[in-house]
Amino acid sequence: MRLGICQIKTRADKRETLDCAEEMLRYAAGQGAELLILPEMFQCPYHVRYFRDYAENARDGITLKRLAKLARDCSVYIIGGSIPEEDDGRIYNTSFSFDPQGEIIGRHRKVHLFDIDVPGGITFRESDVLTAGDDVTVIDTRFGKIGVAICFDTRFPELMRCMALRGAKLIVAPSAYNMTTGPAHWEITARMRALDNQLYFAFASTARDMDFSYHAYGHSMVVNPWGDIVASLDEKPGVLIADIDLNDIERYRTELPIMRSRREDVYNKTYPG
Amino acid sequence: MRLGICQIKTRADKRETLDCAEEMLRYAAGQGAELLILPEMFQCPYHVRYFRDYAENARDGITLKRLAKLARDCSVYIIGGSIPEEDDGRIYNTSFSFDPQGEIIGRHRKVHLFDIDVPGGITFRESDVLTAGDDVTVIDTRFGKIGVAICFDTRFPELMRCMALRGAKLIVAPSAYNMTTGPAHWEITARMRALDNQLYFAFASTARDMDFSYHAYGHSMVVNPWGDIVASLDEKPGVLIADIDLNDIERYRTELPIMRSRREDVYNKTYPG
Repeated sequence: MRLGICQIKTRADKRETLDCAEEMLRYAAGQGAELLILPEMFQCPYHVRYFRDYAENARDGITLKRLAKLARDCSVYIIGGSIPEEDDGRIYNTSFSFDPQGEIIGRHRKVHLFDIDVPGGITFRESDVLTAGDDVTVIDTRFGKIGVAICFDTRFPELMRCMALRGAKLIVAPSAYNMTTGPAHWEITARMRALDNQLYFAFASTARDMDFSYHAYGHSMVVNPWGDIVASLDEKPGVLIADIDLNDIERYRTELPIMRSRREDVYNKTYPG
Repeated sequence: MRLGICQIKTRADKRETLDCAEEMLRYAAGQGAELLILPEMFQCPYHVRYFRDYAENARDGITLKRLAKLARDCSVYIIGGSIPEEDDGRIYNTSFSFDPQGEIIGRHRKVHLFDIDVPGGITFRESDVLTAGDDVTVIDTRFGKIGVAICFDTRFPELMRCMALRGAKLIVAPSAYNMTTGPAHWEITARMRALDNQLYFAFASTARDMDFSYHAYGHSMVVNPWGDIVASLDEKPGVLIADIDLNDIERYRTELPIMRSRREDVYNKTYPG
């Protein structure tokens, strides 16, 4: 299967961003990509003060309507990054996924909200504005099962393992690490989640924009089950095309039987206690 | 606290190895190290055919007697790598830990046995000869709690998390990755276990010896809770001295609240199912 990750530069004007996203998605589809991926909060500058203004609901949000139409037009799966989703007065950081008929086949609400306060680094508190989701998300596609998680969710090996145990062969994580956490943790997180769970892992980031307050790390990447980087971008806007074969996973799991050697009898004595 | 990791080159003659271990341990203690660490199977060439011949029992094994005396003589803690331990006819891959009075304060029997079969890489099956342990091991020291795991155990984020949840501030892993898995996975595993659990992580390896069938990767290292390497060796024999402060951990956990943001309510829906 061919993946296309659209590392978009978010604009202040949502319609301009959506036009840009459409252009990138159509380009990726034109390159033969069958699963298109957008990054976290791609249609909203990443700051808590914007989330409510840019929020949409699942019934009539313009972002979702455009992504559904694009999936249908191009006959591709789209994992639509994430958007601020309004539902009953609450705001979630939500990723909607679409099948090639344009139907919504997955909704992941970020489970772990991003709160950080590194002196001299970065301070950010999603939990001031957002509500956390409560579910592990694994979607069915014709390529196999795909787990979806959002950015800070990738910090939690338990959530990654839950998706693997539910049959995910690929984890897609729309994200936006920053210039404190990105250089330090982005690559090893992607590589280790793939390796630990013996599956493919795709990180989609927004492009870096020094004109906004939040400076995304960029470096969208795809990693194989051995922990090797298959393809990656730098910090600039761009489309990452990568070919992977989800059937490979069984070979990795046979050669180095991590997934079969788990000792739940031992972990259960402590965990998740 | 000051750590001393003894990256020893194992000899075919056990007494020669023990003499060499004593020399390295005394050197490390002379440098002010208060916690001394040896690697996996340090007194036995790492091959399943040797495990039974080199095995000792906990009551009168010469390796344990010498380590106990050294801990007492130097007034240091020793995490005694691992040895093939015979008990009631079974062989375990076991790490014994000693306090500065020479008393055994911890016994970890490797929980996940190392079986691998990578064509063109390496084939090895511990489970042909060894019996697996069934316990998570966290020992009490005057510096705080320390988790002990052995080599392939580090492949399992669940076991690492169990130790963190039981209060470990440092995980010590006597190990011996090889020339297939070492270059690919050693460093990112050490860094990610420390980062995920926001604690210190110490990998102790045997030195590489191309005259034996198993070529250890070496590169003993200490990593801090941000995932940065504090100190490391190359593949040759040597003693790694590193200063760490286990009280740092709270600062890391406050700045980036991973350990406090875990969502057991969500994981429990799947895991450890």
